[in-house]
This record gives sequence, C-alpha cells and structure tokens, in this order.
Amino acid sequence: MAAKIKVSRFLKRYESLQEVLLDKDLAGLGDIYVNFVHSLALSQKLQRPKGAKVNNRILAEAVKRSGLRKMLPRRIDRHAQGNAAEALIVYAWIQEAMSFEDCLKILGEGDDPTDAFTQLLQEIEKRLGATL
Amino acid sequence: MAAKIKVSRFLKRYESLQEVLLDKDLAGLGDIYVNFVHSLALSQKLQRPKGAKVNNRILAEAVKRSGLRKMLPRRIDRHAQGNAAEALIVYAWIQEAMSFEDCLKILGEGDDPTDAFTQLLQEIEKRLGATL
Repeated sequence: MAAKIKVSRFLKRYESLQEVLLDKDLAGLGDIYVNFVHSLALSQKLQRPKGAKVNNRILAEAVKRSGLRKMLPRRIDRHAQGNAAEALIVYAWIQEAMSFEDCLKILGEGDDPTDAFTQLLQEIEKRLGATL
Repeated sequence: MAAKIKVSRFLKRYESLQEVLLDKDLAGLGDIYVNFVHSLALSQKLQRPKGAKVNNRILAEAVKRSGLRKMLPRRIDRHAQGNAAEALIVYAWIQEAMSFEDCLKILGEGDDPTDAFTQLLQEIEKRLGATL
C-alpha cells in the first residue's frame, strides 16, 4: 500500500531515531494510523467490525519495555511517551520498513496489547537499525 | 490491502443499503478508517504528516447532498448521519468495492472536504448498486 500511494514523498529527512520519536507531526498521523491497525486487529479477533482507540498507558508501557524510553528526555510525561510510539510506528510504515500487513499481524498475536505493542516497537527498531 | 488481509471474513451478510448505514459496529470501525484516509489525504496536500479527525458536520452534509439522507429514518440527528457515512465508507472498503487508494484519491481532489465526501459517497453507492 505504501509503495502505491507514495506516502514517503512528504517525509523529511530524519537524522536520528530520537528525532523521529519526538516529531509532533509524525505523532499526529501516527495516532490515527495506530488506532486504525489496532481496530482492524481487534475486529479480526472479535469477528465483527470494531473501532477502538489505543490507551496511552499501553503505548507508554510498551515504550518502557521495548527499551526506547532511554532514548527520550528524562522529564517526559506519559502522553509524550505514547506520542513517541505512534510517531515511530507510522514512520516505519511510511518508510516501508514495517508494512501495514506485518503490523496488523503482530498486533493480532496474543491477548495482551502491551506485549503486542512492545514486540512491534522492538521489531521496528531492529528493522530501522541500519537506516537511522 | 483488503484482499491480502481478508477483512471481509468478519463481515456479516447485509440485506440492504439501509442496514449498512445504520450498523453501529460498522460505524465504529468506519470512524477510525475515515479519519485515517482523511489524514493521509491531508498529509499529501500539506506535504507533511498530519493527523486530523473529520468533522461530523461535514459527513452529515455529504450524506444530505449525496441523496443518502432519504434512506435514513426521518428523526435522526447529525451524529447518526455522520455514522451512516462512516459505516458505508468502511463497508465499501471491506467489500472491495472502493479500495483504500481510490478513496484516498477522491478525498485528495479539490479543496472542499464536503464536496469530496459527497463525491465519495455517490461513487460508493454507484459501485455497490448491483450488490445491495
């Protein structure tokens, strides 16, 4: 999907992972993207359409468990930690490092959303490793 | 995208367009889907990532202009009219009648979002015509 619609055209050049994590524009789009993938994963589990927003507490906890927390400024609240996760997830999609389908698969595995988001962030970090 | 991830597996059988328009489960997922396509269209226009929610007033007006309003119960508020648009848009995506890319293209055309959503709803109604 990303390749077809050329979303990467509107992405500026980021110099570091931290720059991605703290980008507010990316976090804004990421919030919407994450809710969509999450809702679709949930719909598949429940076998009926379901719209749901991801709790910020879950994203902040996944940032902590994945080890990304240490890349963020010390005095940063839970909301900003959630933003960092959202920014990174949509960045990976736009950069074609983590396809929509792969993201959906990881979020659909297991029953604990915090575990699933932790795994997703770790996998993204691994895949982006060489590029940022 | 829809074909690959087999979203249609969790869709029940709908007997009429009105049944789709009034389905609350579809509206829930549709809300999230519409915000995502809208945000991506906006990001392409602005040439930077942007997350934005579609105003319910815009969706309700598009329902009116597209002629779908007459398929809904007379005493229905603006919120429910917006829900109807969201339900139909995501239904068309799941049914593969309107791909994500086509939807993005229509929403990206022109500068008036009400016009764009009106055109989208009319095109969906046309494409679904034979199936519902």
